[in-house]
Amino acid sequence: MIIKNLFHSKYPIVQAPMAGGITTPEFVAEVSNCGGIGSLGAAYMSPDDLRKAIHKIKQLTDKPFAVNLFAPEDNFVDYNRQIKMCKILNLVCDELHVKIEPVDEIYQLPFAENFEIIIEESVPIFSFTFGIPDETFLKRCRKKNIAIVGTATNLEEGKLLKDAQVDAIVAQGIEAGGHRGTFPNTKTPSQIGLISLIQQLVKQIDLPIIAAGGIGDHHGVKAALQLGALAVQIGTAFITTNESGAHSIYKKTLINTSFDNTILTKVFSGRLARGIRNKFIYEMEKYREIILPFPIQNKLTKQLRIEASQQGDARFMSLWAGQSAHLCQSIPVKKLIQELTS
Amino acid sequence: MIIKNLFHSKYPIVQAPMAGGITTPEFVAEVSNCGGIGSLGAAYMSPDDLRKAIHKIKQLTDKPFAVNLFAPEDNFVDYNRQIKMCKILNLVCDELHVKIEPVDEIYQLPFAENFEIIIEESVPIFSFTFGIPDETFLKRCRKKNIAIVGTATNLEEGKLLKDAQVDAIVAQGIEAGGHRGTFPNTKTPSQIGLISLIQQLVKQIDLPIIAAGGIGDHHGVKAALQLGALAVQIGTAFITTNESGAHSIYKKTLINTSFDNTILTKVFSGRLARGIRNKFIYEMEKYREIILPFPIQNKLTKQLRIEASQQGDARFMSLWAGQSAHLCQSIPVKKLIQELTS
Repeated sequence: MIIKNLFHSKYPIVQAPMAGGITTPEFVAEVSNCGGIGSLGAAYMSPDDLRKAIHKIKQLTDKPFAVNLFAPEDNFVDYNRQIKMCKILNLVCDELHVKIEPVDEIYQLPFAENFEIIIEESVPIFSFTFGIPDETFLKRCRKKNIAIVGTATNLEEGKLLKDAQVDAIVAQGIEAGGHRGTFPNTKTPSQIGLISLIQQLVKQIDLPIIAAGGIGDHHGVKAALQLGALAVQIGTAFITTNESGAHSIYKKTLINTSFDNTILTKVFSGRLARGIRNKFIYEMEKYREIILPFPIQNKLTKQLRIEASQQGDARFMSLWAGQSAHLCQSIPVKKLIQELTS
Repeated sequence: MIIKNLFHSKYPIVQAPMAGGITTPEFVAEVSNCGGIGSLGAAYMSPDDLRKAIHKIKQLTDKPFAVNLFAPEDNFVDYNRQIKMCKILNLVCDELHVKIEPVDEIYQLPFAENFEIIIEESVPIFSFTFGIPDETFLKRCRKKNIAIVGTATNLEEGKLLKDAQVDAIVAQGIEAGGHRGTFPNTKTPSQIGLISLIQQLVKQIDLPIIAAGGIGDHHGVKAALQLGALAVQIGTAFITTNESGAHSIYKKTLINTSFDNTILTKVFSGRLARGIRNKFIYEMEKYREIILPFPIQNKLTKQLRIEASQQGDARFMSLWAGQSAHLCQSIPVKKLIQELTS
């Protein structure tokens, strides 16, 4: 299996990079130690925290792992629009008693700084989403033998990734939880079910395809491999493992899920993402036309999401989840990987 | 395999019911003769035509086949709203030189009349979508040993079908071409990818699940069975077979498809349906807020779709297709079924 050789991992199971404290170093290392590929969702991390996390992972495992960043986008949002959004957020989340204030007009995530650390630390796999970083970045990965993994939500994006000479492509089906990886300028539709998406990419792009979205047990893994994927990437089912850093309320919500109650929404971050419906989504969708672009909207809502977590109030938390959340179990990572590969 | 016993067919392959002239009696009979289950999309047929078609199918095959109707909905649309829509349609389709006129305010499809014929002719399988016909209808099927198959797009609908004591459920994933089977009053989301939908239904509903949406080759069939489905229902891949009654331009469009270029739209019929993007969809989506309900919108656009077909103008035809249209081949039904079951 090509992907196995590429990543030197025992099983074709990639734990999806998830930001927001879920992918702790201990959790990532445990996935890799159990034969999968752990991924650190590092897009929101400070460079210092990222370096520390990588050191910790290396201390805990000698197996391959990935660090994931978001391809940078420039979005300028003037103070007036921000002030309007802050007013709405303060109104909707009144009960949390947090005061949301505008941020820098050109607020950006520390992509370049975090990328430097990935290079310096010779991380085994660099994965990314939301587009493709400039060739100058990818060239440096190749020089350091760092495997490059991009994310596509349709064939057009897959072809752009192939042109950029990535080593593998995550095919993100519409079922997937969390952020859609859709490129900023993508023209063709990106709401493709995984069954269709895998086959479109496998047939037309000569690269290993990693299937993501709606897979949560060994039936899903086998189905994806049957369709031609060489590996799968799984997020939601890992959130409820003992080792994940997810909030206990978040884990409980997923464990109690019996059907798909998710929605694609921009209200948390300014980018389309799939999560469990709750009060925040319900109230904020009324303002969907004036939601600010990523990452500004995300930065504005961050403070209230932290507060909601501290108060254990799921009504205002971002409960990212895929359409197969009903498969979630409260088990150790080791047991989940055994189940996925049985 | 339960479904095999239920339907007495050789392979767990149901050819999806497709209205609008695709499922000719010859085509339906050929599918059944080749070991699958042919389905006549009869919702728009007149009772006379339906009876003739059933007679023809019976003449051509002694194997089981299905007749599909739409569960009836009452939608009243006054003349003023119709006149407004007719003006828009006449404007958008100016080039076709057809004059669209309002129809009866309470226009309905001949469900009850067509159902009588299904009973009188003891059709082996009665399948339906868009909801559940009243128990009085279903009771008569049971008395006649006619197998009953409903369509669900989420778990809630699946449970309602189970309560209505159907014999099997078509799980329609978001990938599927043509009309969404969503019930009129469904509360939970119905945009579920097939991978997730199959598993939700299989785990929680003790009935044979027939997977539909995005399946077009034997990899897709095996993946669906792996996920727990007992059969698959395939539409798009059958449209391009030699025997299907689809327009040659429609077939050509599908054969030339290399990626998913479909969209879910209400503009043709008033009900959400997936088809290849074309000029009609592009222009009419601008008026999406005032599209009339099914079946009125469908009746209004019927004349221009017929005219577009006669002129061979794909810009104004309803080119229903699923997200895996790239798998379409120009082959005989027999060869397609061999491929699907290989």
